[in-house]
Amino acid sequence: MKISARNQLKGTVKEVKLGAIMAEILVELATGEELVSVITRNSAVSLDLKVGDTVAAVIKSTEVMIGKE
Amino acid sequence: MKISARNQLKGTVKEVKLGAIMAEILVELATGEELVSVITRNSAVSLDLKVGDTVAAVIKSTEVMIGKE
Amino acid sequence: MKISARNQLKGTVKEVKLGAIMAEILVELATGEELVSVITRNSAVSLDLKVGDTVAAVIKSTEVMIGKE
Amino acid sequence: MKISARNQLKGTVKEVKLGAIMAEILVELATGEELVSVITRNSAVSLDLKVGDTVAAVIKSTEVMIGKE
Amino acid sequence: MKISARNQLKGTVKEVKLGAIMAEILVELATGEELVSVITRNSAVSLDLKVGDTVAAVIKSTEVMIGKE
Amino acid sequence: MKISARNQLKGTVKEVKLGAIMAEILVELATGEELVSVITRNSAVSLDLKVGDTVAAVIKSTEVMIGKE
Repeated sequence: MKISARNQLKGTVKEVKLGAIMAEILVELATGEELVSVITRNSAVSLDLKVGDTVAAVIKSTEVMIGKE
Repeated sequence: MKISARNQLKGTVKEVKLGAIMAEILVELATGEELVSVITRNSAVSLDLKVGDTVAAVIKSTEVMIGKE
Repeated sequence: MKISARNQLKGTVKEVKLGAIMAEILVELATGEELVSVITRNSAVSLDLKVGDTVAAVIKSTEVMIGKE
Repeated sequence: MKISARNQLKGTVKEVKLGAIMAEILVELATGEELVSVITRNSAVSLDLKVGDTVAAVIKSTEVMIGKE
Repeated sequence: MKISARNQLKGTVKEVKLGAIMAEILVELATGEELVSVITRNSAVSLDLKVGDTVAAVIKSTEVMIGKE
Repeated sequence: MKISARNQLKGTVKEVKLGAIMAEILVELATGEELVSVITRNSAVSLDLKVGDTVAAVIKSTEVMIGKE
């Protein structure tokens, strides 16, 4: 399925932290920068996310803000 | 001001498209990957965004989904 | 690609309205209820969305509120 | 109060999972499809959500993505 | 209908700007601070929003970030 | 860093509740109205948020809905 959220950044899972309801996923991008994703525990489990997995961080463009010094 | 949204990806503005209400900002990240941000026209104007600007794409972690092949 | 956003409601595209930056997509669900999606114009064009297309309305669970009478 | 979020899908609460901060609410829609909502624990408690409640899943249109095979 | 989004800030509509797809609503809060809301044009029209209207700015708590000097 | 999210409401931290993954921050605005923010535990810790802190509640305009009686 192709999805309208065009922001899809390739990376590797560095950490998977499962809480009761939510889960925090740390993804290292090709630049070495880290991206934090918060999804539900059930989503993390159903995707069977593990350290070392190749994933995409998917972000709807209306959720991306811009910061400028 | 330090902000709770820890996802702050460095990049360069490639394109600024202003509509009546919204604006689409294309940011090239250090990897060469492109990120699309949609903010209001007024925000883009008040940040005086121009092609070539160094910016950060700022994303709250609850807005980041994970995709896995 | 499997995505962490587990809310994926099947429907048929009823209307595609393209603006300069954004696009409004009207999706009729199996119940006959209508769902409105706002994505970027570029996303709508790159998905080649047309009336009659079978699609999924994809929604991250942190974006779903609950209303109760 | 009428709210600008026009996506309001009728359903029945199937499950309420309360965590320390967040809560996961499983809603069965008229089609039998399931929708997952994540709200705060306090919101779930203040709405006194229980299995069997008739509710609406309320979603702002800018949060709805489109997927197409 | 009571909604799970508990952030509901009272204010007065100062400006309604209608675009082709989106609309920008400027709300003055009791403190005199201004809040900008972006909803769809159709939502603004269906709520018949006009300058001077008493409204509530409704925000899901997962969408509120914190900034600290 | 100036950020595109122009909604920045001044307030004082009333409560900080830390969960395993998420944190709930209660902010009292100048009007006495309360605003609830849900961010990650790590964000709350890295901002060293404490009761009595002066903060800004930062909200992207596409996340603000309007309610009208």
